[in-house]
Amino acid sequence: MLTTSMSFSLKKRMTRRVHNFNAGPAALPLAVLERARQELLNFQGCGMSVMEMSHRSKEFEGILDRAERALRRNLGVPDDYAILFLQGGGSLQFAMAPMNLYVPGRPIDVLHTGSWTAKAIAEMKKVAAYRLAASTEPQKFTRLPRTEEIEWNPQASFVYLASNNTIEGTQWQTFPAVGPPVVADMSSDILSRAVDVSRFGLIFAGAQKNLGPAGVTVVVLRRELAERADKNLPTLLQYRTHIKERSLYHTPPTFAVYIVGLVMDWIEAEGGVAAIEQHNAAKAKLLYDAIDASGFYSCPVEKSDRSRMNVVFRIAGGKAELEEKFAAEAAAAGLVGLEGHRSVGGLRASLYNAVTLEAVEVLVAFLREFERTNG
Amino acid sequence: MLTTSMSFSLKKRMTRRVHNFNAGPAALPLAVLERARQELLNFQGCGMSVMEMSHRSKEFEGILDRAERALRRNLGVPDDYAILFLQGGGSLQFAMAPMNLYVPGRPIDVLHTGSWTAKAIAEMKKVAAYRLAASTEPQKFTRLPRTEEIEWNPQASFVYLASNNTIEGTQWQTFPAVGPPVVADMSSDILSRAVDVSRFGLIFAGAQKNLGPAGVTVVVLRRELAERADKNLPTLLQYRTHIKERSLYHTPPTFAVYIVGLVMDWIEAEGGVAAIEQHNAAKAKLLYDAIDASGFYSCPVEKSDRSRMNVVFRIAGGKAELEEKFAAEAAAAGLVGLEGHRSVGGLRASLYNAVTLEAVEVLVAFLREFERTNG
Repeated sequence: MLTTSMSFSLKKRMTRRVHNFNAGPAALPLAVLERARQELLNFQGCGMSVMEMSHRSKEFEGILDRAERALRRNLGVPDDYAILFLQGGGSLQFAMAPMNLYVPGRPIDVLHTGSWTAKAIAEMKKVAAYRLAASTEPQKFTRLPRTEEIEWNPQASFVYLASNNTIEGTQWQTFPAVGPPVVADMSSDILSRAVDVSRFGLIFAGAQKNLGPAGVTVVVLRRELAERADKNLPTLLQYRTHIKERSLYHTPPTFAVYIVGLVMDWIEAEGGVAAIEQHNAAKAKLLYDAIDASGFYSCPVEKSDRSRMNVVFRIAGGKAELEEKFAAEAAAAGLVGLEGHRSVGGLRASLYNAVTLEAVEVLVAFLREFERTNG
Repeated sequence: MLTTSMSFSLKKRMTRRVHNFNAGPAALPLAVLERARQELLNFQGCGMSVMEMSHRSKEFEGILDRAERALRRNLGVPDDYAILFLQGGGSLQFAMAPMNLYVPGRPIDVLHTGSWTAKAIAEMKKVAAYRLAASTEPQKFTRLPRTEEIEWNPQASFVYLASNNTIEGTQWQTFPAVGPPVVADMSSDILSRAVDVSRFGLIFAGAQKNLGPAGVTVVVLRRELAERADKNLPTLLQYRTHIKERSLYHTPPTFAVYIVGLVMDWIEAEGGVAAIEQHNAAKAKLLYDAIDASGFYSCPVEKSDRSRMNVVFRIAGGKAELEEKFAAEAAAAGLVGLEGHRSVGGLRASLYNAVTLEAVEVLVAFLREFERTNG
C-alpha cells in the first residue's frame, strides 16, 4: 500500500503533471512547454503560430539561426563543424553515416555495446564493410569495452560508437583517442555533460531525449567529411546538401526546431551544460546509492560504466511479477515510464536533463516504500 | 494608401492573428491550435504533454490510431491500402517511391508539369529509368498536358504526377485512367477535394499545407506494391517496414501526428471533405473572378487547369516593382505570404483548407483598393 501523501488521486491526475521517467520521447522542461503554450497561436506578435510560418520567412530563419547558435555555444561546437537539423531520427543516421562517410576498402571500426549499435550495424553492412573493434556481447552488454580489449584499425573509414546505451544502461565516461573520425550516436546523452566535440567527426542525436520533441535530428559534423559522399546519393541523404542549404534544402520540422531552441535557452538559464552535468550527477548518484544500499533492488551494470541517463535495475534479481507491480503502482502514484525496455524487461528510470532532482527524490522514496511493503 | 479600416496597427499585430496565405508551412485551423494549446502541458489528464509521451504508450498509440482512422475516413482509403506517417517530406518520397516501386527494365512514366516534378525526376533518375509521357515545359507550365498529348507506356513501373503544382498554380481536375499504378505527389491538395484513392498506387503528402505542421509525411499506398522493394534497402527507406510496424518502427514525429489528428477532427466537424471542397471552390472563384474582372491583375494559367489551392497572379503583366509593393503593403495590412515563389516571382495566394472565406474577402477588398491607388 502507498502512503496517503504519495497517492495521486484521479482528480489530481486531471490537473497535475506526473514525474516523467520515460526513455524517450521524454520529459521536457516545464518552462519550455509554458513558453510554447504562450506563443502557440501568435509567435512574438507576428500573428501566426510557428507551425504556420513559411520556413523561408525572416521569423523562422531567426528561430533556426538562434537555435543553431545556442546549440553551438552549449555544445562547444568549433567553427569547422556544421550543425544540421534533419529528419528521420537516429535510425536514418544509421544509414546516412556509412552512405556518406564510408571509404571503400577501409572497413568501419565498430564498438558494439548493445541494441542500438546492433541496429546501426544492420544498416551499415548494407552499404559498407565493417569490423568489430570490440564487443561486450559476451558480457551481455553489462559493461563497455576496456581500453586493452579494443583492437583498432588505423585505416578505418571511421569509428562508430553509441555514447550512451539506453537499453543496457551503460555510458562511455571517456572517449577513445584514435586516428579515424569518430561517429557517435549521442541520442540519449547529448548536452547532458561536457564533451570535446573536436574529438568527433560526426555526432548525431534524435531530439526526443535531451533536445526537444521527436521529429528532428541534430547532426554535428566536421564539414570536410561531407565531401566523401557520392554525389549520386539521393540529395536529401547527402550531408553536403544540408550544409550548403543550412538545413533549408527542404522544409525542416519547423516547430520541433523551435522547441529545440527553447530547450537551448533553458539550458543557458540553468547555468549551461556544466551546471546541467552536476545536476545529472547528483540525480544519478541519489538513485544508484538507493539501489546499491538495498538488498531488494540491484543494478546489473558494472559501476564504472553506469549511465547517468538511464538507470536500469531489477527487483530481487529479476522477479518479473514484482517488477510489473512496481511499475504499475509507481504509475498510479504519478511516477511514469519506469518499465524496462520490452526487449530486456526489468525496470529503468531515465533521468534526462529535464527530470528534476525532486522527481528523483520522490522516486527514491517510492523505492523504499515499495521495498518496505513487498521486500 | 490604405484605408484606416484596413490598416493593421502595431498594437493589433501584437494580439491579432493575420490572414495567412503562405504556400507552406501554412495556416492551420484556429480550433486546432486552441485545442493544442489547451492540452499542451497535460494531454487529457495523463499528466504530460504529447511531446513527452513514449511513442509506445497506450496514450500515443491511441493518438496514432485515431489519426489514421480519421484520415482513412476523410480520404476514403480502401482496406488494402496502408496509411503511413513518415519523416523527410515530399523530398524524401522523391527518392523512396522509385527506390521501392521501380521494376528494372520498365521505365517510369512521368507527367512533367513544373518545379516539383522536376525535383522528383532529379531523384528518380539516380535509381531508375524514366521517360516523359508528357511535359508542358514548352508552355512554361502554364497548363497541364491534354489527354491527346500524353504517350503512355503500358509497361511502365508506375506513372508519376503532382496533383497540384504550387509554384505554377495548376491542378489536375481529373486523373488519367491508366494501367500502371499512379504515384501522386498530393502535398499541396490532399483532402482539399474528393479523390478516388483506388485509382492510385501511392499518394504522398508533406503535411505542412493541408494536414498539419511540417515534419510528418503521409503516405497512402496499396500494400502489395511495397513488396517490390529490395530488402537490402535501408530499413527506414522501405515502405514495408512502416506497413509492418504501423509507423512505429522507430519514433515517429509524435506531436506532428497528433496535430494531423486534430486537423482530421476539424475536417469532420466542418462537414467532411465534400463540404471542404465546396468551400475551397467558393474561395478560389472569388479570387479568380476578381483577378479576371480586372485589367490590372492577371493570371497566367489556362482556366481549365487553374489550381484552387495556389492562385498565382501578376500585376500589369509582371511589373516587379508594383508586385513587391503589393506584397509589402498587404503584409502591413495583415495579409501575409503573398509573394510568388522565389523562382518565378509575381504574386501567389495559397488558399488551403484552413484559409477562411473571410480571409479571401479581405484579400479581394485589398486587391481592389490597391488597384484603385496604383492602377
